[in-house]
Amino acid sequence: MVSRREFEKGIPEDYLSHKDKYEESVRKSVIVFGHVRKMQKAEWRKFPKYRYVLDCFLGSSTMRDGSPFAIHFMMFMPAIMSLATEEQQDRWMPRAWEGNIIGSYAQTELGHGTFVRGLETLATYDNHTKEFVLHSPTITSYKWWPGGLGHTANYAVVMAQLHTNGLCHGVHAFIVQLRDEETHKPLPGIILGDMGVKMGLQPVNNGFLAFNNVKIPRIHMLMKHAQVLEDGTYIRGSNNKMMYAAMLFVRVLIVADMGNYLSKAVTIATRYSAVRRQTSVKEGGQELQILDYATQQHKLFIGIATCYVFRIVANRHWSNFNEVTDEVANGNLTRLPELHALACCLKAVVTSDAAHCAERCKMACGGNGYLLSSSLPQLHGQIAAACIYEGENTVLLLQTARFLLKSWQNRHSSLLASSVMYMQSASVEGYLTKWDSSVEGVINGLQVVAVKKISLSMKSIDGKVSSGSSLEDAWNKTSVQLVAAAEAHTRVILTSFFYEGIKEMLAVASESLAPVLMQLLELYTVYWALECLADLLKYTPISQQGAEELQAKYERLLEVLRPNAVGLVDAFEIRDEMIQSTLGANDGCVYERLLEEAKKSTLNKEIVNCTYYKYLKPYMQGKL
Amino acid sequence: MVSRREFEKGIPEDYLSHKDKYEESVRKSVIVFGHVRKMQKAEWRKFPKYRYVLDCFLGSSTMRDGSPFAIHFMMFMPAIMSLATEEQQDRWMPRAWEGNIIGSYAQTELGHGTFVRGLETLATYDNHTKEFVLHSPTITSYKWWPGGLGHTANYAVVMAQLHTNGLCHGVHAFIVQLRDEETHKPLPGIILGDMGVKMGLQPVNNGFLAFNNVKIPRIHMLMKHAQVLEDGTYIRGSNNKMMYAAMLFVRVLIVADMGNYLSKAVTIATRYSAVRRQTSVKEGGQELQILDYATQQHKLFIGIATCYVFRIVANRHWSNFNEVTDEVANGNLTRLPELHALACCLKAVVTSDAAHCAERCKMACGGNGYLLSSSLPQLHGQIAAACIYEGENTVLLLQTARFLLKSWQNRHSSLLASSVMYMQSASVEGYLTKWDSSVEGVINGLQVVAVKKISLSMKSIDGKVSSGSSLEDAWNKTSVQLVAAAEAHTRVILTSFFYEGIKEMLAVASESLAPVLMQLLELYTVYWALECLADLLKYTPISQQGAEELQAKYERLLEVLRPNAVGLVDAFEIRDEMIQSTLGANDGCVYERLLEEAKKSTLNKEIVNCTYYKYLKPYMQGKL
Repeated sequence: MVSRREFEKGIPEDYLSHKDKYEESVRKSVIVFGHVRKMQKAEWRKFPKYRYVLDCFLGSSTMRDGSPFAIHFMMFMPAIMSLATEEQQDRWMPRAWEGNIIGSYAQTELGHGTFVRGLETLATYDNHTKEFVLHSPTITSYKWWPGGLGHTANYAVVMAQLHTNGLCHGVHAFIVQLRDEETHKPLPGIILGDMGVKMGLQPVNNGFLAFNNVKIPRIHMLMKHAQVLEDGTYIRGSNNKMMYAAMLFVRVLIVADMGNYLSKAVTIATRYSAVRRQTSVKEGGQELQILDYATQQHKLFIGIATCYVFRIVANRHWSNFNEVTDEVANGNLTRLPELHALACCLKAVVTSDAAHCAERCKMACGGNGYLLSSSLPQLHGQIAAACIYEGENTVLLLQTARFLLKSWQNRHSSLLASSVMYMQSASVEGYLTKWDSSVEGVINGLQVVAVKKISLSMKSIDGKVSSGSSLEDAWNKTSVQLVAAAEAHTRVILTSFFYEGIKEMLAVASESLAPVLMQLLELYTVYWALECLADLLKYTPISQQGAEELQAKYERLLEVLRPNAVGLVDAFEIRDEMIQSTLGANDGCVYERLLEEAKKSTLNKEIVNCTYYKYLKPYMQGKL
Repeated sequence: MVSRREFEKGIPEDYLSHKDKYEESVRKSVIVFGHVRKMQKAEWRKFPKYRYVLDCFLGSSTMRDGSPFAIHFMMFMPAIMSLATEEQQDRWMPRAWEGNIIGSYAQTELGHGTFVRGLETLATYDNHTKEFVLHSPTITSYKWWPGGLGHTANYAVVMAQLHTNGLCHGVHAFIVQLRDEETHKPLPGIILGDMGVKMGLQPVNNGFLAFNNVKIPRIHMLMKHAQVLEDGTYIRGSNNKMMYAAMLFVRVLIVADMGNYLSKAVTIATRYSAVRRQTSVKEGGQELQILDYATQQHKLFIGIATCYVFRIVANRHWSNFNEVTDEVANGNLTRLPELHALACCLKAVVTSDAAHCAERCKMACGGNGYLLSSSLPQLHGQIAAACIYEGENTVLLLQTARFLLKSWQNRHSSLLASSVMYMQSASVEGYLTKWDSSVEGVINGLQVVAVKKISLSMKSIDGKVSSGSSLEDAWNKTSVQLVAAAEAHTRVILTSFFYEGIKEMLAVASESLAPVLMQLLELYTVYWALECLADLLKYTPISQQGAEELQAKYERLLEVLRPNAVGLVDAFEIRDEMIQSTLGANDGCVYERLLEEAKKSTLNKEIVNCTYYKYLKPYMQGKL
């Protein structure tokens, strides 16, 4: 077992060059994944288990800024599990599981991200040699972004346009060897490299990749859902929706990830705000903990509540995902469209809320939140990345909007999905005759808002189509509203899942815990009612007076939650080694740590920097 | 003259280690400021001139991530100019102006930022030796953040608590030599160093500084506004408000800076969106430029309009600042409180709007906006820093709120400041009897909102005081509303300044330009009306119908502005060398540049990284 000291040896990573950061991350990755290997010996068919292992090792920040190996576990192996036949799995999974090969997952190209159908990489079957020829016909067809691709992975699952017998069958997955297993040199026809510096996640080693007529055996196409026979005959599988369901895997898990990242950010900011004192409110009095300022509570407490929401929602979403994928595997596709719509909008809104809350946490720590030693910039950077990867958020919300419009049209059907069932009640005239600012009242209000926004979007599209627009143009021109409608729907989901989760917890919570849980629930719903106030004013019976009361209730809740704020983040139980923050350690020794970390700056090894003699002195003497 | 090639030699800075980044920045700084010296030979009494020089060299990104010399020009010299007597200026300014000494400005401490009165550094006058003794009594009294302080500056203006004859006279400024002019070693009793890695602005060399009983001559106190005589007698100057006015200098200039940074961000995102194509709306059709998507227009066009707003507001704010400081110098302090209130809220709202728009630009470029080669993360990082430095935004808004409440109480006075004059008209019952969504109508609506929020905050404080709260507690408990009230006031200022600026331009604009300016003005006002919709619904006669019409008008404006979007950013005329972005160059060769920059990654010098032999291969072979 490698000791912590040995693991963290040398100067802090943030001071290293891009190249050194990568090299350090490989050193650490083999230590961490060496352990993983020991822990999970040959258990590869018990697939979900390693999620837990990865969470402990990556999600919880043993490797704070990511690892070039992560995609091997998060994308490469899951892709094989869901896209390969049993024989193919038996061939590739044991080696992948043991880490004998390291894989990447190459889908996005320089010219195409969200529009998967537009991918340009070609996989053309040659009936003669019985091989696929992989080729990158343009600059824009370069694979772009895959983690670990730069210098780490020697295999990849590559998404490419399948051509057989002169016909294109759309995008399919292929397993491609990239580098020699002995020398690690790229194989002939493989052009690859590192993508360069990014806003965060430097050690992930994202790369580019192009193929110059690279030949791979026929059986390297992953054939669970479609096959190419020796003679080039293409057979589409009967259950290719399964492939689609499996691709939701990462998107579903992101909700839990966001909870983890955000929990760290709010722990740091809340603890710092309890230590930091600034300004005596009364002349000559002691300076207040900044956590006592209502404006600071306004910045932080919604973040705390949001962490609790994400945990509850992530668990429910994950169970739901597992149920539905099981059903799909058994041929029952009924709930798949709903799962897809939920996975889209939850990924989009959860990442965007997390980014917003993390940014607030960072800003709430003033200048010290700008220091990398606080860990807040890195946490925000990681969350911001999640707003883009696995589907850009606007595109995802528009996908959910499509599902919502369809559900709206079928709202009287008995087959309406459970997550949009509120459409039936909330669209009835007189559903809300009186405003009520209880949790249930707010949720009902948000339902009415969602229903109104969905129906108005529908009306807008219909109107434009009647006046001669094509459906596509009408959709595009209404898309700002469609995004807002999908977001409104997501607010219903988040608040009602949270409501139901808390209700379950209240049944078992202690007498001292129960009221605090209730306050979190109230804070969250009131906060979002205020954020959606324009819509509530437009579409529900809330009056100006009711709105002012909401604001007053919100301010009261901030006050009431104040005494438990630190306890609520301590409850996340994130160890100091995991938080890695000068501002967020459990003992509150903020200033000592800030100074100690500053002194570690590599520049401080010399009190006079070499540039003084070379540049600064001649300049000051007027010689330059 | 150093050529561009010589200036930019070596590998791109983003790939360097923290130490190398600093060293590279000193190399570049002496080149740049060597030029500055030549350009401005001995003209130091013409102070504002070098603002222009700095703008060209720094603001416009010859040194994209900042310079350790910047604070010398932006804070050290301005501090001497405004706080030193004429004799002191004659002593220090020529050497500072020539760059014979490099200064920093040390105010913020580890424990105190916004609360200047809480600073702990001591400057105790010793009547015997006729010296001041500078001392840092605690860890929290360490100076923290000053630019250039780590390894660059050899002098600093230091803010410290002045003690003479046993009395404390509050915070005053002292000029302190930090390092030997020959060896650059810290002088005895001076403890200093670099602060370490930050979210951005690495080359700025922010540092920490502590004093261990450091003695400086009496005449090193900057004595324009207060003096300490040889016997320790303290004399407060008659016009110390002048000092206060001068300290607004940087805060006022930030508005222009934000315009510059944001112009770059929107230029990059808009040009990229015109090149990038994604998804064919119609089956089999050509993929759309992403700038044709309404959701993309929604993300970007408000940013474009905001750049125009910031330019107009910055110019007016700057003239106003110069007028008022001239008046103050002549003993007329009437307009100083208003200037202060404006400088606070404009700094806060402009930096925060800029951060928001820059973030939108970055996200609008998807994954490619996450690459440092896009320059978007750095631009956002620089703007985010401005939300914190020179006064934290929430604290600044609360200062403006204080001015607003006072103005509200005196609203019937003939001395009401011009920027709050709207309080008189907009508070009259029946000011807005009918909603009208013209530019003037929206501005009037925003005025009513501001007045309502100010008066309700007042009422809330009064109510809490009547029920027994102290004024301070009542203020704190109302502070979320106070911040919102100050922001509402700032919306009135921004929209009405923009309105008046555009009106002036319309008088001289060409027939083809005029309607575009008008569209920008309308877009900006409608956008903010929609953002403030809840308040408009509460406090003005706008109906639900009126609100839907606003939304429709907004969507129409996006469509109408689309053909001129690229022209509107091209009009900023930012040269490619200044933008330094793979996504934002004038020729639109985005993909070629992305690939070319990626290939420059320092990791790509070797196709097999050394860690393969050391770590990766043994791991894959199961030996680790």
